[in-house]
Order: sequence, then structure tokens, then C-alpha cells
Amino acid sequence: MNGIAMPSTKRGLATFEKICRAAEMLFHTRGYNATTVFDIVTEAGVANGTFYLYFEDKYAIFRRLLLEYSHRIRSTIAIATEGLTDRREKERIGIQTFIKYVRDNPQSYTIIWQSLQIDKKLFIDYYSNFAAHYISGLKTAEEDGQLKAYDPLTTAYFLMGVSNFVGLQVILFDSEHSSDQDIDRIVDQVMLLLDHGLFKTND
Amino acid sequence: MNGIAMPSTKRGLATFEKICRAAEMLFHTRGYNATTVFDIVTEAGVANGTFYLYFEDKYAIFRRLLLEYSHRIRSTIAIATEGLTDRREKERIGIQTFIKYVRDNPQSYTIIWQSLQIDKKLFIDYYSNFAAHYISGLKTAEEDGQLKAYDPLTTAYFLMGVSNFVGLQVILFDSEHSSDQDIDRIVDQVMLLLDHGLFKTND
Repeated sequence: MNGIAMPSTKRGLATFEKICRAAEMLFHTRGYNATTVFDIVTEAGVANGTFYLYFEDKYAIFRRLLLEYSHRIRSTIAIATEGLTDRREKERIGIQTFIKYVRDNPQSYTIIWQSLQIDKKLFIDYYSNFAAHYISGLKTAEEDGQLKAYDPLTTAYFLMGVSNFVGLQVILFDSEHSSDQDIDRIVDQVMLLLDHGLFKTND
Repeated sequence: MNGIAMPSTKRGLATFEKICRAAEMLFHTRGYNATTVFDIVTEAGVANGTFYLYFEDKYAIFRRLLLEYSHRIRSTIAIATEGLTDRREKERIGIQTFIKYVRDNPQSYTIIWQSLQIDKKLFIDYYSNFAAHYISGLKTAEEDGQLKAYDPLTTAYFLMGVSNFVGLQVILFDSEHSSDQDIDRIVDQVMLLLDHGLFKTND
């Protein structure tokens, strides 16, 4: 299904994983277009035929990696915010966790954004999926009386944009200031903006 | 300088422009990696040698396009907001204008984001430059007493993230709702968030 055949043995899973990590490293450093299946198997130290046991082609492994990030980022945030009932605290920890995740896993950023060039549909699916989860959380919090009543779709993209660009700034543009303390301080500024708004005239 | 020799005649400029538009179209549809200088000259209907009169290589014309977008997007916003002294109105019109610009010039989005794969430095320069202009405007508005005192760097990336992701949502993810009226309605939601913040508990 989807060009992937999952291995059924422990050893197969270890090989599958090794191929995924090799592809991830090459897509991150050289880019998808400049990477061949031969490069991936060479890097992973497996035979060419082994690749095709699990993946239909290069595109299939790329999709698999995107799916992995989608789950990992969401589950990392879910674990970090588990049990929190206050939406503001959930948002704060969520943004912090996201930025620290992409700092520690920079290949996820490069690969997610590469999808826009490789197949726009992958990129759209990735973010629409992320947005759908965000929207469902926002709706619950609004029903709980914790959020003002804005359009949840726009609010979701608003917040995703904030996390992504503040994340870019910390990780890519000013990577000397990307310690946990730096990120916490920056996220505090973000929370002030989300608490009180931007303009003085609208108090 | 920078791999570009600008033409000095009107006719030369027209040819230069024709080559730029051909490259832009190909980078947008096929991507930078899959496009050759030969493809560009074929598309533009000029001789191979003509390309090298003006551009050192494919990378040079890519950089040129990025520089063009950087100036065009900023000047389009500057013209739309000229004479406005109220920072909120300036922000509203700025975000609206940006989203409509990328809707009408989708190649600008694809090419700006491609730079992250081609040469991270180009992408960093592009956004750092954009942020520097944003920050200077935010500082002025804060001195005028129009904005609350947040860290201007974080505020700039916050707002750039909002425009970019709300823009993505309108243009790429839900392109059936990208009329001027749709965009105005969505930007009104964004402004409410910037006016009053997100959370009910912090009123």
C-alpha cells in the first residue's frame, strides 16, 4: 500500500529503519533530486534489491519519511502537553516543544519543505492534516470557554505560521541563540502577543 | 557583480527580461534542479551565448529572481500602505496586499522556498532582509506609542509567519476561496487575533 511493504521480522525492521535513516540524511544534505536509490543503498550498506523489498521507489520512501515526521512531531507535542487542561499552557508548551523538536531534528524541516517542490500534494496533505488536528483542539478549547470565538481554520494557520517562522528564526537564522533558555524566552514573547495582542490603541 | 551583467540598451533589457521570465516559469513548474540553461534559452527563444552575456550561470539568474521578488513584494506593500500613519491599518493592508500578491504571482512563493534547498544562505538572506525592514517599521510604531513593547525581532517573525501561513492556506490549500473578498474576510479574522489576543482568561 502506498508503495511501501512493511517488513514482518525484527531484522527486517532494523534494515527498513537503516534505509530510512540513510535516505533522510541524503535528502537533508543533498536534496531529493540529487539523491538516487543507489546513493541510499550505498549509504545504508544494503543491497539494491533489499531497497525494493520495502519501497517501490525513491518517491515512496520520501512519502514514508513525511508520514513519520507528521506522527513524530504530533506525538512529541501530545506527550509534552499530556494532562494539561489550560489551553494557554498547552499552547505555550506546544510551541516550545515544536521549536525544540525542529532544532534537534533539522532534517524534518528540510524534508517537509522539499515536498512543496517534489509534489505539491504531499505538502498540502502534510499541513492540512496538521491543521485538522490543531482545529479540533481549538474547537474543544473554545467550547470550554478558554478561547475567543475566531474562525478556527484561520486561527490554526495563524498559530502554525507563528511556530514555523519563530522556529525558523531561532534555528536557521540565529542558531547561536537556540539553547533551551533562548527558546523559552522567545516563546514567552510569543505568548505575550497571544495574550494581549499587538496594538496599543485596541486595549 | 554577483554573476550578473546588466544590459545597457533598451533592446538588451528586453532580452534580459525575456530570459528572466522564461527561467521563472521553468523554476516554478519543473523546479530549479530539473531546469538547464539550455531549457531556459529554448523557452526564451534566444541563443545560448545571449544567456551568458548577462548571467554567469543558472545560479546567478536564480539569485536575480529572488532579489526581484524581494524588491517587488516590499515595494507593492509600500505603495499600498503609503501615507498610512495608523500601524494597525498599515498592518492590515500590508497582510492583505502580501496575500493577494502571492495569489497573483504564485511563482514567487515556489522560488523563494526552493532557495532553502538550493543554497540555505539565499533563503536566510531573503528572510533576514525582509525581517530587517519589518523590524524598523515596528520600532518606529512602538516609539510612536502605537505598539506594545515586545521584542521586535520575535514580533517580526511572528507576523511574517502569520502572513505566510495564512497566505499558504488561502492560495495553496483552499484555492477555491481566494477571491479578494475571501482574503479580506480572512485578514479581518487575523486582525481580531492581533487586536484582542487568543485567550479568554487573559482579558
